Amino acid sequence: MKHFMDKDFLLESKTAKKLYHSAAEKQPIWDYHCHLNPKEIADNRQFSNITEIWLGGDHYKWRQMRTAGIPEKYITGDGDPYAKFLAWARTVERLMGNPLYHWTHLELQRYFGIYEPLSEKTASAIWEKANTMLARPELSVKGIFESMNVYAVGTTDDPADTLEWHKKIADGTAAIGKIKTKVVPSFRPDKALYIEQATFPSYIKQLSEAAGTAITNPDELIAVLEKRLVFFKEHGCRASDHALPCPPFAAPFGDDAALAAERQLAFQAFERAKESSALSEASCADKAPSADKAWGPAEKAAAENAFKAYVLSALAALYKKHGIVMQLHFGATRSNNPVMLKALGPDTGFDACDDQNIAAPLSTLLGRMEAQCEGMPRTILYSLNPKDYQAIGTLMGAFQGACLGDTEEIPGKIQLGAAWWFCDHRDGMEQQLKALGNLGMLSAFTGMLTDSRSFLSYPRHEYFRRILCNLIGGWVENGEYPADWDALIRIVNDISFGNAFRFFE
Amino acid sequence: MKHFMDKDFLLESKTAKKLYHSAAEKQPIWDYHCHLNPKEIADNRQFSNITEIWLGGDHYKWRQMRTAGIPEKYITGDGDPYAKFLAWARTVERLMGNPLYHWTHLELQRYFGIYEPLSEKTASAIWEKANTMLARPELSVKGIFESMNVYAVGTTDDPADTLEWHKKIADGTAAIGKIKTKVVPSFRPDKALYIEQATFPSYIKQLSEAAGTAITNPDELIAVLEKRLVFFKEHGCRASDHALPCPPFAAPFGDDAALAAERQLAFQAFERAKESSALSEASCADKAPSADKAWGPAEKAAAENAFKAYVLSALAALYKKHGIVMQLHFGATRSNNPVMLKALGPDTGFDACDDQNIAAPLSTLLGRMEAQCEGMPRTILYSLNPKDYQAIGTLMGAFQGACLGDTEEIPGKIQLGAAWWFCDHRDGMEQQLKALGNLGMLSAFTGMLTDSRSFLSYPRHEYFRRILCNLIGGWVENGEYPADWDALIRIVNDISFGNAFRFFE
Amino acid sequence: MKHFMDKDFLLESKTAKKLYHSAAEKQPIWDYHCHLNPKEIADNRQFSNITEIWLGGDHYKWRQMRTAGIPEKYITGDGDPYAKFLAWARTVERLMGNPLYHWTHLELQRYFGIYEPLSEKTASAIWEKANTMLARPELSVKGIFESMNVYAVGTTDDPADTLEWHKKIADGTAAIGKIKTKVVPSFRPDKALYIEQATFPSYIKQLSEAAGTAITNPDELIAVLEKRLVFFKEHGCRASDHALPCPPFAAPFGDDAALAAERQLAFQAFERAKESSALSEASCADKAPSADKAWGPAEKAAAENAFKAYVLSALAALYKKHGIVMQLHFGATRSNNPVMLKALGPDTGFDACDDQNIAAPLSTLLGRMEAQCEGMPRTILYSLNPKDYQAIGTLMGAFQGACLGDTEEIPGKIQLGAAWWFCDHRDGMEQQLKALGNLGMLSAFTGMLTDSRSFLSYPRHEYFRRILCNLIGGWVENGEYPADWDALIRIVNDISFGNAFRFFE
Repeated sequence: MKHFMDKDFLLESKTAKKLYHSAAEKQPIWDYHCHLNPKEIADNRQFSNITEIWLGGDHYKWRQMRTAGIPEKYITGDGDPYAKFLAWARTVERLMGNPLYHWTHLELQRYFGIYEPLSEKTASAIWEKANTMLARPELSVKGIFESMNVYAVGTTDDPADTLEWHKKIADGTAAIGKIKTKVVPSFRPDKALYIEQATFPSYIKQLSEAAGTAITNPDELIAVLEKRLVFFKEHGCRASDHALPCPPFAAPFGDDAALAAERQLAFQAFERAKESSALSEASCADKAPSADKAWGPAEKAAAENAFKAYVLSALAALYKKHGIVMQLHFGATRSNNPVMLKALGPDTGFDACDDQNIAAPLSTLLGRMEAQCEGMPRTILYSLNPKDYQAIGTLMGAFQGACLGDTEEIPGKIQLGAAWWFCDHRDGMEQQLKALGNLGMLSAFTGMLTDSRSFLSYPRHEYFRRILCNLIGGWVENGEYPADWDALIRIVNDISFGNAFRFFE
Repeated sequence: MKHFMDKDFLLESKTAKKLYHSAAEKQPIWDYHCHLNPKEIADNRQFSNITEIWLGGDHYKWRQMRTAGIPEKYITGDGDPYAKFLAWARTVERLMGNPLYHWTHLELQRYFGIYEPLSEKTASAIWEKANTMLARPELSVKGIFESMNVYAVGTTDDPADTLEWHKKIADGTAAIGKIKTKVVPSFRPDKALYIEQATFPSYIKQLSEAAGTAITNPDELIAVLEKRLVFFKEHGCRASDHALPCPPFAAPFGDDAALAAERQLAFQAFERAKESSALSEASCADKAPSADKAWGPAEKAAAENAFKAYVLSALAALYKKHGIVMQLHFGATRSNNPVMLKALGPDTGFDACDDQNIAAPLSTLLGRMEAQCEGMPRTILYSLNPKDYQAIGTLMGAFQGACLGDTEEIPGKIQLGAAWWFCDHRDGMEQQLKALGNLGMLSAFTGMLTDSRSFLSYPRHEYFRRILCNLIGGWVENGEYPADWDALIRIVNDISFGNAFRFFE
Repeated sequence: MKHFMDKDFLLESKTAKKLYHSAAEKQPIWDYHCHLNPKEIADNRQFSNITEIWLGGDHYKWRQMRTAGIPEKYITGDGDPYAKFLAWARTVERLMGNPLYHWTHLELQRYFGIYEPLSEKTASAIWEKANTMLARPELSVKGIFESMNVYAVGTTDDPADTLEWHKKIADGTAAIGKIKTKVVPSFRPDKALYIEQATFPSYIKQLSEAAGTAITNPDELIAVLEKRLVFFKEHGCRASDHALPCPPFAAPFGDDAALAAERQLAFQAFERAKESSALSEASCADKAPSADKAWGPAEKAAAENAFKAYVLSALAALYKKHGIVMQLHFGATRSNNPVMLKALGPDTGFDACDDQNIAAPLSTLLGRMEAQCEGMPRTILYSLNPKDYQAIGTLMGAFQGACLGDTEEIPGKIQLGAAWWFCDHRDGMEQQLKALGNLGMLSAFTGMLTDSRSFLSYPRHEYFRRILCNLIGGWVENGEYPADWDALIRIVNDISFGNAFRFFE
């Protein structure tokens, strides 16, 4: 029997151990998709207690505390920090089989040198020890970046953002001083696409002001977004990101009538939505410009679809032009609990996975982009529902390579994104790795990202690399891949770091 | 090589064996969802031969006999009982990899002490031995309940049922006499919700008579159902059950216009359906009350949806109020073979799994219930299609806990139901356990149920517990969970019995 | 550690090894579904270099080369054969975890006796050796058929085909001379059903000419197809094949109004489509016969559906009547990349997996066939998306056996087709085998097919048999199935060859 989470955690064969300890473990971290707060980085934030850093904003943990039956007072409420920590400790005792169980203990081990399982009994001692350590410079942001060997982090930023903190960090003028870790913004224009939301008109104003340019139609919106994209790129941006419940159906490139109809509908939708929230669910028909007929639900859905397809296709071409990676995230449903949304707002642990059919709309969307961009930009396609791997993993194979160009392309130009959010547990990561191996090209995989709001999440890269090495090691030991050590080291290092490094340069 | 189905069947590690034999094996059975006939329990039924008890009503076996090419005469026809048994024995020889292979041999071992595999060759000897034993009191219902350590069974009962047999069993006045096993009814008002079926009007009359109250609209229907629910509760009922191909889309709580529209449509639907089968597929438009316009398929579907959403949401609030567990079963399609339906009627082995998208409607339905009930009742969500685990397993996390209340809730208030019917094989159970572990809280799982019509099905609990112990044992031996024996025993006992015991009290 | 792909490749237990080497390995191959060119067989084609035989038409490989970033010149372009081979070798180095990695090396081992992994370094030596060997008679078609123990191959042929090459091969008058391998045509009338395609009218003319009979409506089309089916059967045809993205919704047998409406719509659709491409996407409404109103997208979709349901149901009855196996393939989306479709045409590596819901339409379609055929013909249902296994695997159980007949049927009359195309990797095959075992009857499985255009693909049968023996061997060693050697050998031989042999006779 192996010891609980020892140095060979999740490594079940000799080859796996050797691959992990002699290769993967030593690679830097390129955390190309996270939700760290750039101001906290600039300020080199230090946390006053473990409740603050662990439970302050982590809705993964909140969900599990609710599942354990803990009252909201000790989750997001005004409960005492230690009482909250204790509630979390009691919850952890119940988390056998859940990734939070492993992440929690990896974080205790790597950041705090604590090897005892967290439970109601051990909570008090762990609270004391962790809090003492949190006061030390090693657990400042800078200390963490150094000890975790973080090469770069890609934060998630709105196109209207000033990027002032990114600037200061890059200049070395922030409190954190000069650091080796690159802190680069990612371009996430979701609010510019969510025309169906009540906040759309106010956001368009905000974006217009940030760019110093009026936005009166989708083409102007796209022009402003390009301006901001260039600004982001000047500040180190390598990637964009879009969250879409489902891909929109795009008019096929070459079908001029369909393209014109899409454009016209996109313009009409913008016209209705820009001043009032005419397309948002709550306000529906009666806020339509008085000259126009009110739109029913089907017409609104078509208009929303046309607008998104039009803008997203145009953005894809801009990403290609400016050498920016495009990330598309599918399958999250947000704020499913209306009672708790009213009480706590969004992003508080009430999201879930969708199960819509994505093959048909994704095919039309990628087909349109391929034509409009003359070959797709580098792209990562994520789904929150593993049932989509079969569709995405095969569809992406139809858009790889140089299109009609005659130069070499980067291997794996279109990626099946890492197991993400509700999927980044052991089984989910293995499933994603196997799907990518079976349907695509695992050796070209850009690998793991934390998608996290927390500075304590870097062990998720370790978790991923252990699972990766275990999978590959198993194949080698089983005679399914040659024991060619040079090749194995290269592949493991590439998936751990090298592929992401090249993909995002 | 391990012996065929020996005492360590399915237990692949030392820890797994220890967990099973020192904990899981000894726990009582709370079979909270089955289809046993209460009259047969009251009568302490004894079976005259193994064909009667095994093949009399088991459509799982019938399907496999058809797949083996056996003529219907020896399945549901007038074939001689031994010829039918022999046909089943020949079928069993072909069932490698199917759960019926394991269940059959577990039943032979546990009830009859027969350890030889069933085949054409061994059929005759097994027939003799089993039939002899069936005559003994150990294989009466009472004998089985005792030897299998059955703490309680929850039968499946119509709200119009008199529960006379439950009463007699509870009083100790039935032929079976006083027994330790609790036999409690479950409240299954499917017929009151299936407004689209031709039998709806006659069922409403029957229910009205059972309650002694007229039912002229959905609100009166709900009132009558509450009356019957209270009656059921007086007879020990702990759980309700609903079978729905797909959750209905419910109007969101708080949107008064949508709620009023849903209510109005539900009332209209009831008005059309109560006298004639106006909403049933066969009779469609022309039976609409003459004053009204006929409904086309889309209007009928909308009306059916509104009626179901309205009544189901109201029932959820009643379950909350009366402390009754709500079970929702999704994903079965019934009687897919029209030729055989005509020949043999329903529930004869022609059902299958649906594959509709359930995330969106389930989200609206649970959201409505959460608001209308001020926190969901204890709920178990089952799907017959494992593709739904990702959606259900994440969505239920958005409805756990005390809602806005400030008291503790039972851990795992919303459950991902056990692998069920077409899913309760080894792979399916592991998949459900892992999904629950990864997405929810495995340690709070209420565990297995037989869903069976047969008194010989209790070894399915053993099957489940072996798979559970094997999974957990594997994690411990692999260093993924601490070898904390107290915690392990508690978790295994809880999932085997304790969680269900608390959930249904 | 096992050696790379040695004789016990994929065989992880003693029982697995014994089953494979003493049984499965020795069975002949009945490759009942492939895309070999009958003329190449007749000509006993010999290949001039390995690029020609490996990369000439294999779009599986092309996709991976594109994913590796290779320019199209070295894929389907005018690159030098050795440069193309080298590009493939470089791609293979990247294919860890992909079935092409295993297939490539199995083919090098079995056909060429080359045991070294293919890479940029080894490419030159392998090129020389393989090309030398390709010139020998052992690597002519005849030589391959003999050395691979190919009992029979079922090619894929259009109903309008003259079957001249099949005739010559059967007569022994082709260049290949007399061979033991049966080369039989399969009946694939896709073009007669794809009424929505622009090529439909010209195809109908071609078919009409081949049969020497006018085709002016769907009934005449069905009559002509029967004529051709009889002709095919005279030339050894055992199976038909249909590729459908999704099953059509069929009117239920017995509902005369619905059946009449379906028939009428099918006739109208044919009327519009027979002369012009009125139903094809590009030409839509305006080519409708001038007397008729133009059809919008919904009306076209309904007409297409009715036509397909009408013709397919009629064909099922013909397959039953003439003892022909019906194969239905679901879930492929074709030519997803419009840019590359324009440049390279179809079948060049731009297909993918669909994810539509198939349970409901498949249920209505099979229900209709069951009634119309008085019991389904022998049928194989394939899906390209493993998410469908749950629906298909349960639904087929509702259509097994003799329907209302009183004679025995062949076991497994309705089959869950082998893991296919994007699914025939190790994980996919295991998943299909387990799904079939859990939901149906694995022992009756008709087993593997190559679906290949290449004479080098027979090791895929070996790959399948190794996976099969490994799965069964694991069950036996784990005590899940008795170590009854006679039964085990019989099952393994049946799935490798015997079941297919009986199913297709």
